[in-house]
Parts: sequence; structure tokens; C-alpha cells
Amino acid sequence: MFLHRQELQFKSTPDEPDAVYARKLQEVLGGQYGEITVAMQYMFQGWNMHTPGKYRDLVFGIGAEEFGHVEMLATMIAQLLEKAPLGITGDAVQDDPTVAAIVGGTDVQHAIVAGAGARPVDSMGNPWQGTYITASGNLLADFTANANAEMQGRTQVARLYHMTDDHGVRELLSFLLARDTMHQNQWLAAAKELQEEGYEQLPVPSNFPQGQEYTAVSYQYQNFSDGPAAAEGSWAAGPTPDGKGQFSYHEGPTTTAPMPPPTHPDSRLYGTTELPNTVEKIAGKVQDKLHKE
Amino acid sequence: MFLHRQELQFKSTPDEPDAVYARKLQEVLGGQYGEITVAMQYMFQGWNMHTPGKYRDLVFGIGAEEFGHVEMLATMIAQLLEKAPLGITGDAVQDDPTVAAIVGGTDVQHAIVAGAGARPVDSMGNPWQGTYITASGNLLADFTANANAEMQGRTQVARLYHMTDDHGVRELLSFLLARDTMHQNQWLAAAKELQEEGYEQLPVPSNFPQGQEYTAVSYQYQNFSDGPAAAEGSWAAGPTPDGKGQFSYHEGPTTTAPMPPPTHPDSRLYGTTELPNTVEKIAGKVQDKLHKE
Amino acid sequence: MFLHRQELQFKSTPDEPDAVYARKLQEVLGGQYGEITVAMQYMFQGWNMHTPGKYRDLVFGIGAEEFGHVEMLATMIAQLLEKAPLGITGDAVQDDPTVAAIVGGTDVQHAIVAGAGARPVDSMGNPWQGTYITASGNLLADFTANANAEMQGRTQVARLYHMTDDHGVRELLSFLLARDTMHQNQWLAAAKELQEEGYEQLPVPSNFPQGQEYTAVSYQYQNFSDGPAAAEGSWAAGPTPDGKGQFSYHEGPTTTAPMPPPTHPDSRLYGTTELPNTVEKIAGKVQDKLHKE
Amino acid sequence: MFLHRQELQFKSTPDEPDAVYARKLQEVLGGQYGEITVAMQYMFQGWNMHTPGKYRDLVFGIGAEEFGHVEMLATMIAQLLEKAPLGITGDAVQDDPTVAAIVGGTDVQHAIVAGAGARPVDSMGNPWQGTYITASGNLLADFTANANAEMQGRTQVARLYHMTDDHGVRELLSFLLARDTMHQNQWLAAAKELQEEGYEQLPVPSNFPQGQEYTAVSYQYQNFSDGPAAAEGSWAAGPTPDGKGQFSYHEGPTTTAPMPPPTHPDSRLYGTTELPNTVEKIAGKVQDKLHKE
Amino acid sequence: MFLHRQELQFKSTPDEPDAVYARKLQEVLGGQYGEITVAMQYMFQGWNMHTPGKYRDLVFGIGAEEFGHVEMLATMIAQLLEKAPLGITGDAVQDDPTVAAIVGGTDVQHAIVAGAGARPVDSMGNPWQGTYITASGNLLADFTANANAEMQGRTQVARLYHMTDDHGVRELLSFLLARDTMHQNQWLAAAKELQEEGYEQLPVPSNFPQGQEYTAVSYQYQNFSDGPAAAEGSWAAGPTPDGKGQFSYHEGPTTTAPMPPPTHPDSRLYGTTELPNTVEKIAGKVQDKLHKE
Amino acid sequence: MFLHRQELQFKSTPDEPDAVYARKLQEVLGGQYGEITVAMQYMFQGWNMHTPGKYRDLVFGIGAEEFGHVEMLATMIAQLLEKAPLGITGDAVQDDPTVAAIVGGTDVQHAIVAGAGARPVDSMGNPWQGTYITASGNLLADFTANANAEMQGRTQVARLYHMTDDHGVRELLSFLLARDTMHQNQWLAAAKELQEEGYEQLPVPSNFPQGQEYTAVSYQYQNFSDGPAAAEGSWAAGPTPDGKGQFSYHEGPTTTAPMPPPTHPDSRLYGTTELPNTVEKIAGKVQDKLHKE
Repeated sequence: MFLHRQELQFKSTPDEPDAVYARKLQEVLGGQYGEITVAMQYMFQGWNMHTPGKYRDLVFGIGAEEFGHVEMLATMIAQLLEKAPLGITGDAVQDDPTVAAIVGGTDVQHAIVAGAGARPVDSMGNPWQGTYITASGNLLADFTANANAEMQGRTQVARLYHMTDDHGVRELLSFLLARDTMHQNQWLAAAKELQEEGYEQLPVPSNFPQGQEYTAVSYQYQNFSDGPAAAEGSWAAGPTPDGKGQFSYHEGPTTTAPMPPPTHPDSRLYGTTELPNTVEKIAGKVQDKLHKE
Repeated sequence: MFLHRQELQFKSTPDEPDAVYARKLQEVLGGQYGEITVAMQYMFQGWNMHTPGKYRDLVFGIGAEEFGHVEMLATMIAQLLEKAPLGITGDAVQDDPTVAAIVGGTDVQHAIVAGAGARPVDSMGNPWQGTYITASGNLLADFTANANAEMQGRTQVARLYHMTDDHGVRELLSFLLARDTMHQNQWLAAAKELQEEGYEQLPVPSNFPQGQEYTAVSYQYQNFSDGPAAAEGSWAAGPTPDGKGQFSYHEGPTTTAPMPPPTHPDSRLYGTTELPNTVEKIAGKVQDKLHKE
Repeated sequence: MFLHRQELQFKSTPDEPDAVYARKLQEVLGGQYGEITVAMQYMFQGWNMHTPGKYRDLVFGIGAEEFGHVEMLATMIAQLLEKAPLGITGDAVQDDPTVAAIVGGTDVQHAIVAGAGARPVDSMGNPWQGTYITASGNLLADFTANANAEMQGRTQVARLYHMTDDHGVRELLSFLLARDTMHQNQWLAAAKELQEEGYEQLPVPSNFPQGQEYTAVSYQYQNFSDGPAAAEGSWAAGPTPDGKGQFSYHEGPTTTAPMPPPTHPDSRLYGTTELPNTVEKIAGKVQDKLHKE
Repeated sequence: MFLHRQELQFKSTPDEPDAVYARKLQEVLGGQYGEITVAMQYMFQGWNMHTPGKYRDLVFGIGAEEFGHVEMLATMIAQLLEKAPLGITGDAVQDDPTVAAIVGGTDVQHAIVAGAGARPVDSMGNPWQGTYITASGNLLADFTANANAEMQGRTQVARLYHMTDDHGVRELLSFLLARDTMHQNQWLAAAKELQEEGYEQLPVPSNFPQGQEYTAVSYQYQNFSDGPAAAEGSWAAGPTPDGKGQFSYHEGPTTTAPMPPPTHPDSRLYGTTELPNTVEKIAGKVQDKLHKE
Repeated sequence: MFLHRQELQFKSTPDEPDAVYARKLQEVLGGQYGEITVAMQYMFQGWNMHTPGKYRDLVFGIGAEEFGHVEMLATMIAQLLEKAPLGITGDAVQDDPTVAAIVGGTDVQHAIVAGAGARPVDSMGNPWQGTYITASGNLLADFTANANAEMQGRTQVARLYHMTDDHGVRELLSFLLARDTMHQNQWLAAAKELQEEGYEQLPVPSNFPQGQEYTAVSYQYQNFSDGPAAAEGSWAAGPTPDGKGQFSYHEGPTTTAPMPPPTHPDSRLYGTTELPNTVEKIAGKVQDKLHKE
Repeated sequence: MFLHRQELQFKSTPDEPDAVYARKLQEVLGGQYGEITVAMQYMFQGWNMHTPGKYRDLVFGIGAEEFGHVEMLATMIAQLLEKAPLGITGDAVQDDPTVAAIVGGTDVQHAIVAGAGARPVDSMGNPWQGTYITASGNLLADFTANANAEMQGRTQVARLYHMTDDHGVRELLSFLLARDTMHQNQWLAAAKELQEEGYEQLPVPSNFPQGQEYTAVSYQYQNFSDGPAAAEGSWAAGPTPDGKGQFSYHEGPTTTAPMPPPTHPDSRLYGTTELPNTVEKIAGKVQDKLHKE
């Protein structure tokens, strides 16, 4: 159950309108690694979780915070659009190249569809979609996904920080950067704790009996490109992070198999295949040709 | 540049046809965490990389291997479909509930669109799409994405392992499980090496000057749900994984701000707003009503 | 800002596992008119609203409730999947047509991707997407969209009610039906109030100066099909709902214009066009042919 | 059956080329509420309709008209692009910021993909898709969807009206505005007629036995946000639009239930769960640590 | 301008209900190569065409016919669904495996969303989308696209023909097969005529000055796989179809270039790169390690 | 199996940075007819093929080459972005309209998401998707699809050639144009060979017994538009390309059928239908009205 409070977690007001920047901010609102993604991802992980207690409380606790970040970004975007030129003729697009340039760089649906409002899309206008989230039920896999999401997110916010010098916007971004710092650390701590407490080990999923995998290649680097430096990394020699093997290095595959013969499905699927009478047919055609010549 | 060799990295032939299983295998071919995803993800990371040498050689080396995994799965799927009932009337769907059930569980486009062939889609028929991949240019973020992809992928393959007892299919899966074990280990090793060699630290991106984030909340757990056990985790007290702070715990937000007032964009965007003469209008209407009564 | 409470608004537990029904329930969780849609739609309307007070409080108040409905459905789906056959070989798919039929009717990603968990998708596995929502800033238009969403939603829940006889599921649906009844009524009441208070009139948007539209056809039914009964409706004669005109009826268009001539863009876009020397070219070719014969 | 006539319903020729505006016009051609949407929506409602006569004639009559509007917009867009700078080097993008700005604001696929032609996409380049339409078979729900579509559409056209001062474009828009006025009125009239004639009542679907919903909350406003003004609306007290109840107001939920315990699906789905030996494992680890210290 | 007539081009009524088949038929209604695709494709080609006369009349003439085919399929699907079991509990899904199997094979949105009606989706439930169509303005390219669309379409209809023995359905399919035969022939005839009349030649686009392409490789087969039989085809020796060259065969590339060095974009994009002080940093770390040991 | 070599097939380095052009190049990398499409299309055709030998070797041989073209374009795009203004504040967007215009025309995700790297998207930012490819198992249909793909691709590259005067970019494009010339010719040659050798004939699929189609309309042009010139083409009279018939011309349909009556599905799907007591209800209402008046 969610209760909404008409307050923000942090001040979210720009000094100046800036419709081009509003479009860029959409990335961290509605993009692959935007706030809608992490909010939904953590909540679905909670709803699908198979263990009560601290891990479930954690995903619910942070998931709810992230919905508040969606709200902070949406209100910021609406304010950036409020007094900005959005292509109305009076904006003199035709005459002033600066204004024309600005209008050219906006999300034109901000004006036409949302009437100067935020939208659940990324910075190129692609709608947010459910495939952005990850919630597998395996917590070590999912917390690694979460750590990645916070890293990608913080990288994007850091880039956006340098694309404006609006003091109000930067303040909000500095807050989001700090929360991303926290959340990166937290997911890495949680992933470590999961392993220390015996919930899950590497390789994920750890309770699949490893004897049933083809162990001859479980710790073997096989190089399918011709870059020789790949042999120099810690992934090509020495102990493996899961503590269960030693890396080895091999140029190309260590096993190969012939490609199976082509399939011949039911003829009523009308694929092209070797017909029994192909040879005859061709022979006939060749003869026809010879006759004509 | 890619050279194709008409061999497979491993034997990929089922013992029996099974169209329902063919559909399920599509998940690890063309799903969010399927082989197309990792192949494309590693290659784009290589093409966008800003540093030569072992890390680039690594993504190219594994990316090319993954394209070969796409091929192994596609040929397996085509063989699983080869002699399976696919809804042709002669399959007696109407009469035999077992056959009907099988046909009901297939990807019907396998027959109608591909003529008993594999497709670049997931197990529910959603087409593979470019948003599945991650290639940010920041290697610590991206290698964490890669580790996650291999964990999710290995979890899915492990689940699929129990959904068949076909010996040929299981052999292929046992090979893929082993490679996922290798690749999980390898990306974690590479992520560690990146940090040890000073390329990148936590929090990602590490060269953003952390003094510009709102540091008061950089290591503070803020609990937006009412689960008290969230306070018990290693993310609520003690040193942080980035080695730069101490976690603290707080119930709910530590900062709040009033929600900014509603925006008032250009009236020619025709949003609904308080009109200057609203009060008058309403007064008039009320009077009209009173008169009528 | 959102606070999460680990309680549900209503009891949400099935009597029996049912993976096929879990898939169907996804429609009202993650479909075009599912709970994610209305939750996001009302919230974006709030964030983009240009007027403070009761209308904004309304969308925030109901939007937050709807996120709780997402949660009730997600937990219900996870429970429906908990003990259900999901295609694990031990489920004896091969032998028992009933089990095979059940497995064939499931969302196979429930098992392979989510490990028996809910997903942000509809009943055919299409991911939820941002284009499902409507938030234009014009409240009369948007409240009409909301009324429609609640009507479509209640219709879908009513259909789902007859697709199960599980008492626990039906109890949850009876609760959702009641809330949809409330929300239908509420949006219609709000739309009426908007008009009575002078915020907005028909036709939407009402402050566009109607004199600038081509008024000759503003209230004219033009019948482009050959169904004569279209003339019998209240849309073909009598006063119009906006109180500003009288409907009239006309067979087909009342105005026509010739189609403009084809365009001739820059030749470096390599479209096919009448070449200046076409005639000559053809003449030459014909002559060539004659010579050969 | 459709017959095409090489005439337009109204004059559709711009005074001047304008590629930036051509892109904006795509919204009302191929966007969520563009003409393709309404054309397809009304036709599918006709094909799926369960009652002959005036309602079916109506959707067919207007649906066919809307396909003609698609045509008017497509020909207009092709003409706007005909002589406009589209990024050909000779357009001197590099030197003249005005031209650069114009080119920057275009749909670059207009040139690269369509060779200066219209496309079935919206103003941000997202392809039109089938999920934009609504055709449930319940006519009161669907006519409400139609009224909403015409309101959103007219709002977008009104916004676009102010984004150009090209006389030819404005003439076409003034025609479309008038038809949207007509269609808004018509769907509202049809929705009213449906109810008056007893086809359907509120709440939709009206023939679902309302006694089977959880009536205690059927007319109760439950406020999940902290905005007190929500209590002031006509949705919080007084008779309900469906004529069957009285609105009441409540702060937050009137019913709650504990969240069900976490699920424990088959272990071969490899979700993370409380392992039987977790306690022992942790104890062992702690002891190990103590020994080391 | 389109006029709709409430007649079909051909009889479209099934003998028996069949919801599973209704789902399959969706492929040729709303799939990649379904009737919506060809209808929209031909119409957009017409609206974007740069030459008046027979080619434009052709695309308009056939495009309008195809919209009628959409209608025939939609009405057929609605009838196939009319009396079929759609998962209503009374259908006894739980008890009768045959019925369960049938329901498992349906498009469940047919019942839940459309109330037993057709939908603008393919046979796996993916919504139709604008990217399915092709309209480049180059007629030789586009007519080749059209020929392909009719070939794919006829192949799919032929497959569907064998998936039912319902006489009514087969009659409709036999009609569609005949029209696909016609349309395949027609587009090939039109493509030939375009070339004979000098509108366009091979290679498309023919008015691009071929001297500006890198002619050394214009007619050279370069084999990037190790299949030797590729050298045996008519594409590896002899005259080329465009009449302008001779095919030659080469194993692998005939030109190569070193991969350019990695890029080094602005450091504020926070990609990982060789830092100036990397060497020093690593040296320091190594020393630290040595000290500790 | 794929082996990667760290070389390019051709030199791929621009003379100057150009972020706007980098965005445009995305079309031929990740668009509907970009290099990812043809690479994946040819490979899937190979994996699904039912005949060994030269045709399979051909698709594998060219498919692998196309993956190398993806790589050339991705490295080119990364270089075009390397030193280009990407919206960093120091780029002085606010002051210099030329820079502002440039930034406005970029793919803003190039900077925010990829840190100046290439992405698997088209020039409007839509992600590449699996529905772009065609692999039906019928080789004549598929080779026609391939010919079309190369024609559309070459047309797009030719257009892009005129949108830059960067010598390095043009060199790469001249190489791609030449390969597209080759590939167009090759697919047309292969399609011809398929027919000459008796694998497949027109109409596709040729082994469907043509006597089962409704032959009365197999070669009949039916004109559903009012353009009279459609009768002048070679598709309206004379022998058909498949060598099996004679074209004829007819104004409009030659067969028609009445539209079937509306369907009446199960009432628990809550569609609107003629209720048994409708007449009574209306009569009652009318009487009520009369009483009131």
C-alpha cells in the first residue's frame, strides 16, 4: 500500500526555463536506467521475493523512495518547460536562429501532447517499457542488476550535470548523485551479505548442481577474437572469484562439432528444399534450352 | 571483421522433436538476457571503448563467442521443430487432447511465419530489441551489467534444464551453463582488476568530484517502507563498500521540501488553469441556478 | 513523496494455485488498461497540472491508491504461481494432457524469467509501456480519458470474474469491481464539475476561438459508409451536447478538393519521377528491340 | 469494402515548405491520438460490434471519413517537405545557423527513409502501433474512449494551429478542428442515447450483477494522498452519476489486510529462499571469523 | 478519400467456431506481412509518390482493396470466436483436457480485452506497428518490397490453409491465395515496366552516379564463411543482372584496414580511459601490497 | 561459429567530428534496413534453411560480411562523436546559435547514455528490433526480401552521401554503395537460379496446388480507386510473369458478398447487444418522459 505526501524529498526548482534540458532530463526519468525503472524493479523484486525480513524490507524501502524521485524529476521538467519557447509562432522561430535551434532540440511532444508537461519517455521520446526491469527471484543476480542500474544511473546524472549551469537543476542533480552513491554501496553490501550468510554463492544460481554442467570449460577463457592482450588479464590465469577453480587461457574453442544437417519439416510449410525430382527437372530444362538454341 | 565457420562450438542436436520446448528455448536466444543480447552488448562495448588492450580484446573475444551461441540455439530450435506437430490439420488437433495441448503451447509463428525455423524473439514472442543492451563507455558500470547478464542468463538456462529430459538438449544446456559460469567469473575478475589498476573506483563514475554531490545523504539509508528489518542489514551501519564512508540508518527522509506551485504555461497550449474570471463565472452560474429555482 | 506500508488494501490470497489464471490476471496488472496504467496516468496528470486544489488532490489521492492495486495483483499472481505446474519435467507434461494443457496456457516467462513471480506485462506477454497513459494538461479531456480507463478496466475485471471460481480470487475481483464503480462515478462527477465551474466547456479545448474553425462542418454528420441507419441517431439531428449548434445529416462529404499534384523533391533523394528524357529513352529502347527482332 | 476516390475532403496545400512543421504534423497523423488511431479504432469497433443498425452504421461512417483525414495529412506533409532543406549538403548546414537549426528540428527519416514523404509515425518518430486503439465490444465504454480521442485530438490540433502561420496549413487545421468538434459532440450524443435506450447503464458494464461487487466501497472516496481539498469535490458527497448511490469521503483506506507471506515455489526455479541450514551455515561462519581474530 | 460499403469482396463465414484458429488468422490480419501492412504500405507509397498516372493509380487501386481484406479477416475472426470456449468457467476448463487445451491455445486478449472480437495484432499478440511498412519514394525498390510482401503473405496463407479443415475458412483463404497470386504477378510486372520505360534501372537507385562508388568491389563475391559451394552459384561468375559487370569470386575480403584507435571523448562523459597517472597509481598499489606482505 | 579479427574491411575514419551526421548514420546501422537487419536476416535464413550447399553457403558468406559492416559503421559513429560538441555546458550552447543548432540535431542519448558511442538504434532513436528481419524458409520469397533490403539500403546510403562532404565518411559510403550494388545483383541472380533449377516457381509458394485457390480472380486487376490510368499498365492485360495466365482488368470487385450479421458472444463478456427487453425499456422511458412534460 502506498501513501502519497504532497512534499518532495528535496528542492526541485530551476532558476530558468530550458526546454532542451527538460528533454535531456527525461532520460533519467523514463529511460532504460531512469527512476521509473528502479522504482518498478525494486517493487517487483519485493512482490516476487521468497524470503521475509531484511532483504524484502530493503527493496520496499528503496523502491518507495525511487517513486519519489520520479516525482521530483517530473515536477522539475514541468517547470523547465513552463516559460520556455515551445514552438508557438510568437516564439519567432522563423527569424531568430537561437530560438529555432532551441525549439529544434526539444521533445516536441512536450508541447503538442503534454501541453508543457513531463512524459513517461526517455530523452529520444521512446516510451518507458516493462522490459527495462529485472526481477528473477534470485537475489544475488537481482542485486547485481540493481548495482548496475545505480551505476548506469549515476553516470547519466553526472553527464547531465555538465550539460547545464542552472543552479536549481544542479542542486537536484547533486542530491540524486548522492542517493545513487548510497544505493550503489547498499546493493553491493547486500550482495556481499547474501553470500556471507549462505543464501547464495557464485556462480549464480549456486544451488544448481555444478556437476551437471560441462565442467571442462567452466573456467576456460576461449578467445574468439585475435587480440592477444586478452591473455594478460586476471580472467586468463589464477584463482576464480567463485573460489572453485583456476582460470586457463585458450586461443579459440576447445571443442567443436559439425553443424547438423538442414532440417526437412512438413512440406505443407512450403519451405524450399531439395525436391526428389530436382535433378530430372533441371535436366529437362537444360534439354529444352538446347532444343531452342 | 567477422569470419564464419560452418561448425558449432558444441554438439547441438535433440533426441526428439518438441515444439513446446523450442518455444521456451527462444528465451535464451532472443530474450532480454538471451545470447543475442550478450553478443551485441559486448561488441558495442568494444566499438565504443576508449582504451586499447586487454579490456577491449576481452569484450571482442567473448562477444564473438556469444554469436556462436546464438547459432547453436537457432539450429537446436530448428531441429526441435523439424518433426513436431505444428498445427497442420493432419496433426489431429481436434481429436487428441495431448496433441492439442502441445500445439497450444507452441510459438505459432514458428510454423506460420518461419516454416519451422528459429526467430529473433523471446519465449512469449516479443521481438528482440536494442534496448536490451548496455554500453555506456564506463567499464566498471558495464562489466557489472555483464556480470548481471550472465547471472540472469545462467539462472534461466538452469530453469530450462529441468523443463526437458531430452538428452541432446540437456547436453547443450550443460555446455551453456559452464560457459555462463566462466563468464560470470570473468566479468567479476575484470571488474576487480579495473579497480585495482586505478581505472575506475566506486562510486561509479569515480572521477566525478564527489564534493559536488549532496554528501549529507551519500551514505544514509532512508527507509520509505515500514519494514523494520531493513535496519538490520550491513547497508544500515558500518563501513561502505567504496571505503569512503559509514552507513547510517534513518526512518523516512532526512530532508523535505514543499512541492512547487503548479506551472502556468502559454495559454495557447490549452491546459486547464485558474482563469482570471473564474470566480465571476461561477458566481454568475450560481445566480442563474438560484433564479431558475 | 511516497511512503509504503506492508499491508494490502484488501485480502489477496487464492484458494488454489492456477498458473493459467495468473497469466490472465496480468492483463489488469500490466495491460493497456491495467492498474499500472491508471496509477501512472493519474500521477502524471498531477505532476503536469496547472491548477492547485481539489482536482490535483483528487488525482494524487486516487493515483496512490492505484499503485496499491498493482501490489495486490502482483502478490495474487505470485501466489497463484506458487504451487502450480510450470513446466518442470516432474510435472509430467508429456504424459498427462491436462497438465500439458495447463502448461500450454501459461505465460512461460513467469517460470523462466521471473521464477514464479509477477511481471510488468499484459496477458499476452507484451511489456507495459508509457504510451498507455494520457496526461494532456487539459482536464476535461483527461478526466474523460480516466472515465474510459475505469470503464474498460471494470469490463475486463468483470470478464475475468467468470473465468475462475476460486473464492479468494473472486473476492479480490469483487473489491476491484467496487473501486472501479467508484472511480467511474468520480471521474464523471469531476468532469461535470469542471464544466459547471467554468474551467472548461465543450468542445475541448473550449478556449480555442471557435470562430477560427471551419464552422460550416462543425455540426454536420457526413456519412462515408452506406449504412442508412446512421441518419436515425441523435447525432444526425437536434441540438448538440455542447449547446452551441444543431446536428445535420449529409450523405458523404459536403466539400471536396482535387488531390494536389505529386511532389518533386530534390533529385538527390533518389525518388522515382518523370525524367525529362523518359520519352527519348523509351523510344530508343523500342528501336533497339525492333533492330534485334 | 473500401472504395478510394482521388479527391480530398478539403484543400490541403501549404503556402511554403516547412520540414520542421511537417515533423510536428506527424503527431496528428501517426501519434497515439492521430488520425490512423481513430480510423482503425472506429473500424475495429464496427467489425466487432454485436448489434446491427445505427450504432454500427455510425462507426463505419466516421471511420471511413477518418481514413480520408490520414490521406489529407499525408499529402500535406509530403508538400511541406517538397522544397524544404532536408540536410543535403548544398543546404549549407555548416554555415548558416538558421538552416542548421531547421534541419536539426526535422524528422531525419523523412529524408533518409522516405525521400521527402510522410511516415506512419508520431512527431518523435515512434511508429504507430495497434495498442493505441480501443474496441472492447462494450459500446458505452468504447464511445467514451472515442469522445476522449476526439478531445485529445482537437487539443493537439489547436496547439499545432499556433505553431505555424502558413495560411494553407491553418486552413486544413481549421477544417480538422471543425470535424473534431462534430465528432466530440457525436460520441457524447451516442453515449447518451445508448443509456436512454437501455443498451447500457453506468457503471459499465451495467449487466454485471452489482451485488457481486464489494459494495461497501462502491461509492467511497478514499484519499491516499494528503491533499485535504479532495474532500471538497462533488465526488466526495452527494448523489453519484450512476444514480445508484451517495458519495462518501474517507481519509485513506477503509479496509486493510496483512500482506501474505512470501511464496516458496519449486526449488528448481532457483529463487533465493530461507535454506533449512541457513542458521547453521551462518553460525559456522561466525565461529570461523572468531577463530581468525 | 475513402467510401465504405457494407459488403465484403467475398464470402467470409466459418462453418464452426474455433478460437485457436482465430488466433492464428491474426497473423495475416495484423502481422508483419498481414493485410494491414500491405494496405498501409501501398497507400503511403501513393501519398509519397512523385509521378502521376498509372503507377500511382495502381498503388491506390490495390491499397483500397487490401483494406477490404482487413475487413474480411476481422469479420471472420469475430465469427470464429462467437460461440467458441474462451475460458469462461462454464467452459469446464478444469475438467476437460480438450477444452483446456483449446483455451490454452487462444489469444486470451480476444476474450478479456475485445470481448470476442478481432484485434490489430499478430498471432503471438504483438501489436501491428508502423515499422512494418516500406515507402521510400523509389518505385523499383518499393515494388520489390511489395512483391516480397505478397510472397510472404501467400506463403503464410498457404500454411494456414492446412491448419484447418473448416470449409468456410478455406473458401476465404482460397480467395486470398488467388489475390496474392495476382498481386505477386502485378508487382513483378510493374517492376519490369518501370525499368523498360526508363524510370529506374538496377542497381537501385540508378541515377546515383555509379562512378562515385568504390567500383573495385561492385561485382565481387567475397566469402566470409567457409562454405565452398558459394563459388558455384551464378552470383560468383558470369554477367550481372544489372547488365553492367561480371561477377567474380574471392575467398574473404579483398581489402582490409586497421581498426582505428579507440576514441577519447570529453572526460566529463565519464567513460573509462587510460588516465595519465595510471602507471603511477598501479606502481603505488603494488608497493602498498609489498609492504603489507 | 564466428571468429572476430581486429581489422576492418575498409578504411572508416572521418576527417572531422560531426555529431549530427553521426545520428543520421545510425539509420544504416540500426534502422529497418540497416546493417544489423541484413546481418541477422541472412544468418537466420541460413540457420532455418532446408537445403545444404550453395544457397546456404551464400547466406552465411554474406551474413558474416554484414556483421563487419555493422562494425565499420559503429566505429565511424564513435569517431564522428569523439570531438564533437555534445551539449556539455562548455560547448556554449546558450550563446552560439550554430553550436546550439548542432546540439539540437544530435541523438542526445549518444552523449547521455553511450558517452559518445554508437547505439543499436535508428536515426530517430528507435531501438533495432527483431521484426525487421524476414526468414520464412521459402527461399524465393526470402531472396526477394533480400533484394529489397539491399535496394532500400543502397537508396538510404546514396541519400546520406549528399548529406556530408567529409571525405573520410564519403569514402566509407562509396564502399558500402559498391557492396550494395553487388548484393542487389547477387540476390536477383540467386532468385533467378532458384527458379531455373526448379527449386521454386512463381507464384510463391509454388508447390501449393494452385487449383485450390479461387482461380477466377487469380489474374484479374480489380481497381478499387478511381484512377483510370491503372488500366494502362502491363498488369492489366497480357501474359503474367509466372507464365501461367493472362492479366485482365475490372473496375472494382468482380465478386461481392453481404456482410455477415453481427456476432452475439457469451453475455458474460459484457459486450453491448440487443437485449430481449430493449423495446420495453425504451417504451417505458418514453412514457416517463411524456409524463414529465
